[in-house]
Amino acid sequence: MNKSYLNFRTDMADERVDTYKRVHNLSEIDGIKVDSKINGKINTTIVDVLNENGKQAVGKEIGKYVTIEIQDVEYLEESEKETLINELGNNLEILVDSVLNNQENKSILIVGLGNETVTPDALGPKVVSYVDITRHLLKYAKEYVEPGTKEISGISPGVLGTTGIETSEIITSIINKISPNLVIAIDSLASMSVSRVGKTIQLSNTGITPGAGVNNKREALDKNSLGIPVIAVGVPTVVDMATITNEAIDKLTDNIKSEATTYMNHGIDSDKVKEIIELFENDNRYTMIANVLNTENYIVTPKEIDSIIAKISEIIASGINTALRPA
Amino acid sequence: MNKSYLNFRTDMADERVDTYKRVHNLSEIDGIKVDSKINGKINTTIVDVLNENGKQAVGKEIGKYVTIEIQDVEYLEESEKETLINELGNNLEILVDSVLNNQENKSILIVGLGNETVTPDALGPKVVSYVDITRHLLKYAKEYVEPGTKEISGISPGVLGTTGIETSEIITSIINKISPNLVIAIDSLASMSVSRVGKTIQLSNTGITPGAGVNNKREALDKNSLGIPVIAVGVPTVVDMATITNEAIDKLTDNIKSEATTYMNHGIDSDKVKEIIELFENDNRYTMIANVLNTENYIVTPKEIDSIIAKISEIIASGINTALRPA
Amino acid sequence: MNKSYLNFRTDMADERVDTYKRVHNLSEIDGIKVDSKINGKINTTIVDVLNENGKQAVGKEIGKYVTIEIQDVEYLEESEKETLINELGNNLEILVDSVLNNQENKSILIVGLGNETVTPDALGPKVVSYVDITRHLLKYAKEYVEPGTKEISGISPGVLGTTGIETSEIITSIINKISPNLVIAIDSLASMSVSRVGKTIQLSNTGITPGAGVNNKREALDKNSLGIPVIAVGVPTVVDMATITNEAIDKLTDNIKSEATTYMNHGIDSDKVKEIIELFENDNRYTMIANVLNTENYIVTPKEIDSIIAKISEIIASGINTALRPA
Amino acid sequence: MNKSYLNFRTDMADERVDTYKRVHNLSEIDGIKVDSKINGKINTTIVDVLNENGKQAVGKEIGKYVTIEIQDVEYLEESEKETLINELGNNLEILVDSVLNNQENKSILIVGLGNETVTPDALGPKVVSYVDITRHLLKYAKEYVEPGTKEISGISPGVLGTTGIETSEIITSIINKISPNLVIAIDSLASMSVSRVGKTIQLSNTGITPGAGVNNKREALDKNSLGIPVIAVGVPTVVDMATITNEAIDKLTDNIKSEATTYMNHGIDSDKVKEIIELFENDNRYTMIANVLNTENYIVTPKEIDSIIAKISEIIASGINTALRPA
Repeated sequence: MNKSYLNFRTDMADERVDTYKRVHNLSEIDGIKVDSKINGKINTTIVDVLNENGKQAVGKEIGKYVTIEIQDVEYLEESEKETLINELGNNLEILVDSVLNNQENKSILIVGLGNETVTPDALGPKVVSYVDITRHLLKYAKEYVEPGTKEISGISPGVLGTTGIETSEIITSIINKISPNLVIAIDSLASMSVSRVGKTIQLSNTGITPGAGVNNKREALDKNSLGIPVIAVGVPTVVDMATITNEAIDKLTDNIKSEATTYMNHGIDSDKVKEIIELFENDNRYTMIANVLNTENYIVTPKEIDSIIAKISEIIASGINTALRPA
Repeated sequence: MNKSYLNFRTDMADERVDTYKRVHNLSEIDGIKVDSKINGKINTTIVDVLNENGKQAVGKEIGKYVTIEIQDVEYLEESEKETLINELGNNLEILVDSVLNNQENKSILIVGLGNETVTPDALGPKVVSYVDITRHLLKYAKEYVEPGTKEISGISPGVLGTTGIETSEIITSIINKISPNLVIAIDSLASMSVSRVGKTIQLSNTGITPGAGVNNKREALDKNSLGIPVIAVGVPTVVDMATITNEAIDKLTDNIKSEATTYMNHGIDSDKVKEIIELFENDNRYTMIANVLNTENYIVTPKEIDSIIAKISEIIASGINTALRPA
Repeated sequence: MNKSYLNFRTDMADERVDTYKRVHNLSEIDGIKVDSKINGKINTTIVDVLNENGKQAVGKEIGKYVTIEIQDVEYLEESEKETLINELGNNLEILVDSVLNNQENKSILIVGLGNETVTPDALGPKVVSYVDITRHLLKYAKEYVEPGTKEISGISPGVLGTTGIETSEIITSIINKISPNLVIAIDSLASMSVSRVGKTIQLSNTGITPGAGVNNKREALDKNSLGIPVIAVGVPTVVDMATITNEAIDKLTDNIKSEATTYMNHGIDSDKVKEIIELFENDNRYTMIANVLNTENYIVTPKEIDSIIAKISEIIASGINTALRPA
Repeated sequence: MNKSYLNFRTDMADERVDTYKRVHNLSEIDGIKVDSKINGKINTTIVDVLNENGKQAVGKEIGKYVTIEIQDVEYLEESEKETLINELGNNLEILVDSVLNNQENKSILIVGLGNETVTPDALGPKVVSYVDITRHLLKYAKEYVEPGTKEISGISPGVLGTTGIETSEIITSIINKISPNLVIAIDSLASMSVSRVGKTIQLSNTGITPGAGVNNKREALDKNSLGIPVIAVGVPTVVDMATITNEAIDKLTDNIKSEATTYMNHGIDSDKVKEIIELFENDNRYTMIANVLNTENYIVTPKEIDSIIAKISEIIASGINTALRPA
């Protein structure tokens, strides 16, 4: 049985569920609940990882994963944009409420993960730059602040390669200093499919692993490591090159297998052909390709990534502002 | 015989020569002369396409192609940068002199091809923004201009998708208006190999086809279409996704073939294995992959492309300034 | 009489009308009609320059000037943004219809004036990058285009200092090649007042003088020079430094004059004081200040100009798209 | 006596020394030592504030201030750039050695102050992005690091307005976590004179007050507040608008005074004229102008600030890399 899919580099819970179902030929997975709804151009899918079995199956922590998918962020009308921001804001608000338990004095630290100077990795820092920050106003100019305003602070800690400091070290230091109740962390993600890049927003209440998208994976940011809940907001902005190559070979071998009978004139029986073809389908193929390509420093991304990042980061910031505004 | 290499998407003359030699197992090609020299970290290769046979073999017009390769533009010392700028300037000056035939009043139009808002396609416009422009000074403030200063003008015409106008239409209009003797056109190119991206500068005296790198190919800009010589300066900034996948499969099949004897235990003789494997090597594979991936809107590029473009565009502009300065 | 106001560097018709009225103590000007309305946070003022007298009074060509003023583009809700886009789109559509006289096959060239690499001057090129361009689709893919779609093309010709070519030369060349019926030109403007920077959009049907805002004034782009009507869309992004200094001195002398009686203890009668103070109010003061400051290379701009330009250019592009969409 | 100069907003020690000397008509100040030298296009001035008297006179802490001035960073040849980088590197190395006292294991935190999204305030973050960071390499890949390499880390903490957290809180948290021996902080500064903007680098061993240039002043970063020495590197990128207006009025009143005899025909004696003119020279004028203009959100900056910041930040990073490289 082919398990190489487990190596597929994707941070999207729904893709992992779909792949597991497809490979195991299942319509349901014990420990995984999936709901979805459509609102105009917006598809929302909620994956609940309910137990250890679900976690093992899809390789994602127990918790809730909301995927909001839009057709094309480049061509949204203002009213569609507003609908999207509300959908995002509402789902985020539900996640925030679920982890904050109606604490009175909410203090929330927004963390923009990623490297500002690498376009597809700049999502987090850009979002933070658009979020309404209030902590300093509450401290120095409280009289100008609407009652009920939550204490919002923000930081873009950079990446290990440009700071020399683990992102988790920076975040922990700041949490110790300013004692927020919650972190909302924004990061670029990797998807399995080029068609989802820049078009999908994933929310979860299980924390995040910085650098999963563009950089190397670092220590997780979650309740375990930080001591406070972490809500993650991510957008796939790249696809791993080995993943794409792997997928291309899958499709090539499918083509060849489906025409196996035509190989009779090679004097070999079609079962043997299939057997050989399966050499291309072994479990280590992903790793083999990754090694062959030596591609860790290269990314696959849409041509319009600059404008996609500009637009989706404004939308996400507006969604966060909507979710956190005074009740 | 495998000719699918002809579909490999590369604009680099030296890659096409190497591939042709490798595939045909040749050490020389009739109609192609190759010279190369090393100067510290800088490799310069000059490919002369001398006749129709050479042109057919490598799919490049008759003329001269200079490839200047550097180890890593991200980590050049100032003195290495200066050496590179001089190497570029000298080679460019030779090409300019070869097409301008010592005309007295040289007027040169610098054309920055590509889309400023797409990072890997912004090379041309960025270079133009750094080139020393003199036409207006010669016209309105001649007393401040050093004697012997050439008339330099510059334009970044955008791309068809953002202007709705063919780049060649815009350039032709402007040439009709200001009557330069020469166009120097700068564009992003595609390479076959990720390792050359951002590290190689190709000069040629044969003109250029805009959009060969990041966008769709458009009408050529050359002496035929514009009526004046066109020197092209290009840097590979992307690799076509299908090219990379194709290369990965090549390496996989090589691996499998080299271990063909180990397949004995599958009960098939190793020649048969090779025969089947060759199904993966047919002439249409590149097209098949390109169709399967449906990837025309996606690019493979180094993570650091933003900073690579920033640095190499300054270097190219300095090289052009060096080549065109008053004698 | 103090006429130095005529030197005030402003491109805003309504500011010129207000200043003329104030200086001459008038409530109406012969040849100038002013209308205004308020729609939520949006103020729209329409100045009609009706005759030669009005033209002389305010120094603006005969025609219509629409000024749309918003409170703060940085903090617009999505719904306010939509209202603004519609207000802009509707006013622009009226201007377009007034000059195009219901021609059947409308072809419109959008011209983004200004220098992309100078933030406050980048408005025009940025707007063009967001406008829906259709000319190439109508030419190469007509089957995908909605019936009634106008032929829209776009160009950002750069500025004289970076191209060496007069902007009017480039535009004329392209008009000769592609024969549009109308030019819509977008440019950064100068205002008299820092408080209007980035918050005001001016439309007019009288053409535009490139570089009025950030760069030196160049040849006008209008029906006279181009042979087709020119609608101008502009946003003030800078204030001239001498204008601000001038204004500061005005306010200082006002302060001193209003306290003239307190100067009695200097042993001079207050009329004499006023007389001397008027030395500061002579006609050449603006020029004197401009010379003293030698400030042509410096600009006064809001700190947030990067984000203002990013936001307002999207809004203007959406307004243009609204005005030009198929009927 | 006119003391309004003390309100002039400048962070440059040499400007404060010159102004103090001019206003008090002194050629020397007790407690201030000034040295300068010229190296080609580069002027280096070293101001030593030696005692409390010097500190009071110029309003700068006791310590050393090195000002490196270049003619025009936009038009430096590569070799001039290298000279500048070496001049900067050597002076910085001397300052570093003076505060680190030959400690064996040097760990240095580079702090990029300022707001990345506001062009003239982006200097600090941009410099950090170009500095060679080694802390993570020493930790995770020591075998690849040259012996003697110092431990370099870097952080761009943002500004209070976008993080809600005092910059000093963030820096203190990180210092507690990673225990460096020295901070090198880079920030945009304000100068009195537009002609120095982007052309002057000031180094000092006395710490820095973030936001002095573009934003509001915040708590100082120095040995007192952080517990470790702080070397500051700054470049003036803006001039305060009130400073410029003040200067313009100075020049106007000088003009008027120098022509005082011509006022005889106003029937007032010229001494009286001077007396009145002095009303414009009172101590509160700067504050008065600042209030009148209400300009805290506006900046005066060169048109080319985008390209100046891009170039000078690379130069400063190279200078830091030179100063900190393995001995």
